[in-house]
Amino acid sequence: MQLTEIRIAGFGGQGVILAATVIGKAASIFQGAYATMTQSFGPEARGGSSSAQVILSGDPILYPYVAQPDVLVVMSQEAYTRFAPQLKPGGTLIIEQDLVRLDNTPHGAARIYGVPATRLAEELGRKMVLNVVMVGFFGAITKVLEAESLRQAVADSVPPSFQKLNLSAFEKGWDYGVKLLDKLAHNGEPNGHLVSLEGEA
Amino acid sequence: MQLTEIRIAGFGGQGVILAATVIGKAASIFQGAYATMTQSFGPEARGGSSSAQVILSGDPILYPYVAQPDVLVVMSQEAYTRFAPQLKPGGTLIIEQDLVRLDNTPHGAARIYGVPATRLAEELGRKMVLNVVMVGFFGAITKVLEAESLRQAVADSVPPSFQKLNLSAFEKGWDYGVKLLDKLAHNGEPNGHLVSLEGEA
Repeated sequence: MQLTEIRIAGFGGQGVILAATVIGKAASIFQGAYATMTQSFGPEARGGSSSAQVILSGDPILYPYVAQPDVLVVMSQEAYTRFAPQLKPGGTLIIEQDLVRLDNTPHGAARIYGVPATRLAEELGRKMVLNVVMVGFFGAITKVLEAESLRQAVADSVPPSFQKLNLSAFEKGWDYGVKLLDKLAHNGEPNGHLVSLEGEA
Repeated sequence: MQLTEIRIAGFGGQGVILAATVIGKAASIFQGAYATMTQSFGPEARGGSSSAQVILSGDPILYPYVAQPDVLVVMSQEAYTRFAPQLKPGGTLIIEQDLVRLDNTPHGAARIYGVPATRLAEELGRKMVLNVVMVGFFGAITKVLEAESLRQAVADSVPPSFQKLNLSAFEKGWDYGVKLLDKLAHNGEPNGHLVSLEGEA
């Protein structure tokens, strides 16, 4: 597995840490690679925002410091404003499209993908699973991990009584991502503009 | 707050990650400092062991990489064997004394403190709170954080119905640490040998 640095950010209560843990577990426990997950506590945590860094690698990770993530997943406007400038040039930006409005600042993201994760979660009757919808979408778009490893990691990370709900949330996000890639295969790859099934692409 | 690097390690199910989270939150949310918590997933996680790194600092932390922890808290023999060689010379080693037997390898720990955390947790009827007993003992011994910040972080990190139990576990560990320091004030500081209320000191 190629070294991949990921940052996931949003506000408290969106389940940012669980999403990061699922990705880390999928890579390591279910796919034989290595992963670290770093959570920072500081003034921003007091302000109600939450972020986590995940590093995936085929080799043991000595320095779990994310400088410029390859993939940035943001679920709030504040998280977008704060972390988008750090994205690696040519990296992948994934946004919760109903919660994040892209500003006009040019940035290095070659590819920007949007998903209405909160709405998809609400279709399952539980807004709280938007984080796992995001994980599914992330998985389909980035192709860094196998769907089955991610499913196993989801099941391993939530209480038994919530497994079915969370696995459905995962599939929703994954399917949305697959459909979006399908659409792009016909319309061409994104280049600095948001693409979504409802948007400009 | 002085930069302090801490590693907490044990086996899966002992609540290593929660212990690390409580310490990080106490420093940041309740004491105005900064903290990072890094969890590694890898082959050792598949083997059922668990470890987390916590860094506390008065300033934002740019590199959350623990090379040689100032404080090592171990709750299993395997964790001791693996991580004790990494302890900073002159650092503090804290062990669950019923689960860890010190070997004869000389190492740089100037001070080694033992606590029967599992037994103290069992006195509360719930072995599962040994991690919070360890946090209390850690707090009293190291004096890096204020008792009240740690109490608030414990309360903030467990479900409401488990707050009372966990706060009692915290006090048990804290009191045990205070008594141990009291005994040492009479008998002299430890120097490379285990000290405990039941042991050699």
